[in-house]
Amino acid sequence: MKAGMMDYPMTLPPMLERAGKFFPQVEIVSRRPDRSLHRYTYADFHRRARLLAAALQKAGLKPGERVATLMWNHSIHLECYFGIPAAAGVAHTLNVRLHPSELAYIVNHAEDRFLIVDDVLLPLFESFKDQVKPERVLVAPTTGQPVAPPYESYEDFLAGAGGDFSYPALDEDDAAAMCYTSGTTGKPKGVLYSHRALALHSFAFALPDAMAISQQDSILVAQPMFHANAWGVPFSAILCGSKLVFPGPYLDAASLIELLEKERVTFTGGVPTVWLRVLEALDADPGLWKPPPGMRIIVAGSAAPESMLRRFDQMGVRMIHFWGMTEITPAGTVSRLKKHMMEWPEAKQYEARLKQGMALPFVDVRVMTPEGEAPWDGETLGELQVRGPWVAANYFRLPEESDKWTADGWFRTGDVVSIDSEGYVRIADRSKDLIKSGGEWISSVDLENALVGHAAVAEAAVVAVPHPTWQERPLAAVVLKPGAAATADELRDFLAARFAKWQLPEAIVFVNELPHTSTGKLLKSRLREQYRGWKWKRPAESGD
Amino acid sequence: MKAGMMDYPMTLPPMLERAGKFFPQVEIVSRRPDRSLHRYTYADFHRRARLLAAALQKAGLKPGERVATLMWNHSIHLECYFGIPAAAGVAHTLNVRLHPSELAYIVNHAEDRFLIVDDVLLPLFESFKDQVKPERVLVAPTTGQPVAPPYESYEDFLAGAGGDFSYPALDEDDAAAMCYTSGTTGKPKGVLYSHRALALHSFAFALPDAMAISQQDSILVAQPMFHANAWGVPFSAILCGSKLVFPGPYLDAASLIELLEKERVTFTGGVPTVWLRVLEALDADPGLWKPPPGMRIIVAGSAAPESMLRRFDQMGVRMIHFWGMTEITPAGTVSRLKKHMMEWPEAKQYEARLKQGMALPFVDVRVMTPEGEAPWDGETLGELQVRGPWVAANYFRLPEESDKWTADGWFRTGDVVSIDSEGYVRIADRSKDLIKSGGEWISSVDLENALVGHAAVAEAAVVAVPHPTWQERPLAAVVLKPGAAATADELRDFLAARFAKWQLPEAIVFVNELPHTSTGKLLKSRLREQYRGWKWKRPAESGD
Repeated sequence: MKAGMMDYPMTLPPMLERAGKFFPQVEIVSRRPDRSLHRYTYADFHRRARLLAAALQKAGLKPGERVATLMWNHSIHLECYFGIPAAAGVAHTLNVRLHPSELAYIVNHAEDRFLIVDDVLLPLFESFKDQVKPERVLVAPTTGQPVAPPYESYEDFLAGAGGDFSYPALDEDDAAAMCYTSGTTGKPKGVLYSHRALALHSFAFALPDAMAISQQDSILVAQPMFHANAWGVPFSAILCGSKLVFPGPYLDAASLIELLEKERVTFTGGVPTVWLRVLEALDADPGLWKPPPGMRIIVAGSAAPESMLRRFDQMGVRMIHFWGMTEITPAGTVSRLKKHMMEWPEAKQYEARLKQGMALPFVDVRVMTPEGEAPWDGETLGELQVRGPWVAANYFRLPEESDKWTADGWFRTGDVVSIDSEGYVRIADRSKDLIKSGGEWISSVDLENALVGHAAVAEAAVVAVPHPTWQERPLAAVVLKPGAAATADELRDFLAARFAKWQLPEAIVFVNELPHTSTGKLLKSRLREQYRGWKWKRPAESGD
Repeated sequence: MKAGMMDYPMTLPPMLERAGKFFPQVEIVSRRPDRSLHRYTYADFHRRARLLAAALQKAGLKPGERVATLMWNHSIHLECYFGIPAAAGVAHTLNVRLHPSELAYIVNHAEDRFLIVDDVLLPLFESFKDQVKPERVLVAPTTGQPVAPPYESYEDFLAGAGGDFSYPALDEDDAAAMCYTSGTTGKPKGVLYSHRALALHSFAFALPDAMAISQQDSILVAQPMFHANAWGVPFSAILCGSKLVFPGPYLDAASLIELLEKERVTFTGGVPTVWLRVLEALDADPGLWKPPPGMRIIVAGSAAPESMLRRFDQMGVRMIHFWGMTEITPAGTVSRLKKHMMEWPEAKQYEARLKQGMALPFVDVRVMTPEGEAPWDGETLGELQVRGPWVAANYFRLPEESDKWTADGWFRTGDVVSIDSEGYVRIADRSKDLIKSGGEWISSVDLENALVGHAAVAEAAVVAVPHPTWQERPLAAVVLKPGAAATADELRDFLAARFAKWQLPEAIVFVNELPHTSTGKLLKSRLREQYRGWKWKRPAESGD
């Protein structure tokens, strides 16, 4: 029997209207290319996002058509996040760190009708513009310089909108946003987010036991807005009325620290490498930042090492681990301590906090092995599968990828995990990053996390390299901290305290730099490629 | 264009499953009729709620059929909250404080097929059982005494369920719960809540800027579970995994204080009169309760006076005002201070906190006057109208009440309010409680709140009484604190500092007690009745 409740769709326009009505004076700060700070308020954002929607309607955008953005993190990008869906369009964020040929493929595959690009990113657009045919290209004049023909200015586009905007009828299942996964293999795959998914994710993500996002917060969005809805942070922030701070093109440690300090930031996020650089800069000058009480940093993308959590704890900053994917809008699990864990010894608390954590409400998780569903014993490894209202059901126009979903409707994440008795997911590895040595599996992630706990190690990557006897053996590539020194034997001894002998890296090589994906993850495929022909020493030589 | 997200309905079973999987060791404490405390865990609750669902299925309950509860606040009632909807039934909570004839009317109007009743409430049931015909009556043996025929024991019912339960297919718009409004006029009206409304309300209510409900909390549910979903608190608590404490039949101050102290409660709620009694008891013995850091009390039902907020602030307890209605699942607005208000002078902060506050996300509010929508100027009074995914669209089988909704789909609350420039709703009065004196309106609520700020006043009610000259004039009925003394002139002088002369009560009468509705609100209709024939003194006599 149907209940007697209103049929009120969960879409983005009510969030935009709430922002304008209840929080008109809240600030939104964006760093411009000339490093100056642009400031305006929620009232300005609300007005301009509606202007963008009106202008898009006037330009003939039809419901469901894609409008691509090629932009850094700033207020105009935020206007696109809300203004494009408010016109019933789909805001399609393009990853500025991709190769031009990939970008061309994506724009063509998504059939982006319009494109909005930062003036400072025009050279990138021009590197693939001959391969794509968007109907109109609007340029955001972030430098303040006039936009030269043949391009149109985003500001002129808004100015021509006229003032008589009213929201189109929207269904909550309609598409609002789109993002292509930046996988290390295969073609990029598009995920089409619904209004409903974004609205529900905004709620779940903001809960006290998730990110605890509040109107009291000042939020620095350091994870790229072109990647997985900036983790959903701008959506939760707009829902709650939080101050927003955008770093523009500047993600270096000094620029971020300046914003943290100057804008009294209470909440931020980004991949661990960003915070590693921040810690290094603070090592050099601890006076640069006095974190406010309750400061939180969320990390995802790859696992943060324990040493990093400890460093931030010493500063009174809570680093919170979560796990997400482009296909999950993106948050799936968050690692917060439950009440009874507050009584645990410190070491056990860190162990829990370093896991990927507990599923958000309405996200179902399970671990599948060839024998069926794995028990939650913290040991049995299998593939993590998820289900929920903000989990993708397919890729955009890629029916051949349907094997990423099980017959009973779960999404196959490709992550190899265990779940413990508390329900905390622990990623052992990506399926393809596990090392199969003599019939046993070795987790490259565990070795990497342990290695960066060594005082001399800045970053480490462990990959599987073919081995004549053991099928595969782990090889560790290590970047040392500036001025630090260590030998391979020293690192092996350091690891030996925590790993079985057969799990230890068979070789440790020192490098100046490790390859990363455009979103800051270790690009292990390149490392595997690089070390594929590695000549193993014979056992006697390697010291075994 | 449809997005590519999973079709995952927002229903109660995922919340129940989450509770059982992630929080099995969390406690649920209930006070029994013999005053002892019953304790079990989320694991027990999860198992038994599923058993109830299985037993109801086995008993032939069909989707959408109503199962009524006649119960105090305790763990079995919580099992009904989740177990009945998990069987696709509708949990219909009956207000134990209603007159037997009203209860009979409601049970018949709702066509409740089964009824679950506390053993200690059997006398109440028997007072109207001849007027109703539920197919089966299950008795919860809260005293531990065996259930005597012709009644069936709830425990036997569960034991007979069998173990092979699986959830039925549920649509999120399906009915899950039902509650009749306990209006002071007219027939009770039923509201049929959907799974979706309860799930979304659970999210919004738990947000940091709403009630900030967390797994870290210990929550005492002092507002009745038979009234408006216990304000949604048990649903948010189960979503988040919070410890729950239920007072059973004992809502006296001493019993509540004992639970607050013993169960380390961090969050509770109830109508202001409950907390007034608690404050009086603490006056007598302040050592009874040491509130933990971060303690919150939410109040609704009627406005809490400033003096009460100040008293609790002095104890380090944050009292949070919200506004809700049975028709809104029930929360509509919450009064928290925005960030910039933290800089306001104390008096202005209290003024904001005493308002009903800001609409929750996805709740739209507007004020309608005969001239159209009122500006948000904090002055213009009109009827509050609301819209949102957890707002009722109709009353159960009462098409003649459709005038409670506007032609454009808003619910007419009947509350007379203004909204200020911050978006904070302030209830001036219920339409029928406003006093129309000489063409001007006087707010009875404002006068009542001011009166209870006087040191000698325990409670006050102000009603309109017909007046030959002025149409209506305010009459105040005042209950003094035990041992306190005050004269009518003294109270008038006290009020004169804050009100215009024409707004002051024309008469002040002292009484031992004021009439209340079953949910603790002042029963003004009875007072109006009582003082309808009041003989006004001539102006010269009344001192004007």
